[in-house]
Amino acid sequence: MTRAGEFLSDAAREALKTMRRGHGGPFGAVIARGGRVVAVASNTVLKNNDPTCHAEINAIRAAARRLGSPFLTGLDIYSTTEPCPMCFSAIHWARLRNVYYATTIGDVKKLGFNELTISNPKMKKWGRSPVRLHRVANADCRGLLKAWTALPAKKLY
Amino acid sequence: MTRAGEFLSDAAREALKTMRRGHGGPFGAVIARGGRVVAVASNTVLKNNDPTCHAEINAIRAAARRLGSPFLTGLDIYSTTEPCPMCFSAIHWARLRNVYYATTIGDVKKLGFNELTISNPKMKKWGRSPVRLHRVANADCRGLLKAWTALPAKKLY
Repeated sequence: MTRAGEFLSDAAREALKTMRRGHGGPFGAVIARGGRVVAVASNTVLKNNDPTCHAEINAIRAAARRLGSPFLTGLDIYSTTEPCPMCFSAIHWARLRNVYYATTIGDVKKLGFNELTISNPKMKKWGRSPVRLHRVANADCRGLLKAWTALPAKKLY
Repeated sequence: MTRAGEFLSDAAREALKTMRRGHGGPFGAVIARGGRVVAVASNTVLKNNDPTCHAEINAIRAAARRLGSPFLTGLDIYSTTEPCPMCFSAIHWARLRNVYYATTIGDVKKLGFNELTISNPKMKKWGRSPVRLHRVANADCRGLLKAWTALPAKKLY
């Protein structure tokens, strides 16, 4: 498995765990500097009663705290699903370099989440962002959305 | 002065205070339910070493904590500058109803901030968001950007 695949699977595992505890939706993220993990996080919108607690925002906050800087220049983020426009923009502000993601905003909109349907390639193009995007096939990330669908009780947001 | 004007001036006053202490950029926000203020916040990216600590995100987090819910349905936000795409998207996720703002993303891009140049009307249209936008002229919000320009030492982000 590639490094991107491993980090995406790590992110999916974290999200599966917290989603089953009712913390939030089926979304996880890892921030790394090369091969070294700096932060692992998942969606905690429901646990924290905070609409900004997406996996990527939680990971950026944790990484920035750890590094003591609002700039994560040269670091990369691995997100189980294509970051929403809020998270894409946070990634831009944080100066993260590469974004790797598996499933798409379109995939999770179908699950009922209140998505703003603007893809990352469009956000990048229209916002003239230097952030580099990489879509990667990953079975654990796809499985995460299936596990969400199979959950008996869940809240959408 | 209209209610929107008063809340925008409140937000500008808060931002002027914290900007002069080096907490972050010249940006403030108020969240209100009708005429009652629920949260007042300003940009603290530098104080908190957190690229997500824009005024609107800080105000949304504070309001959600206060209400014990990730949904701020029916509440309104007053932002000294047009929310960046991160903040616009957070406003959408929070189900805020109306956004009132004075200066624009274009105005602050000229000051050197690393803006994603996608306006709120475009985010709303392309993302099919029900959030309602209102641009309001406000001298205190314009003065806030002038005060930033006049600051002898400052950090951009």
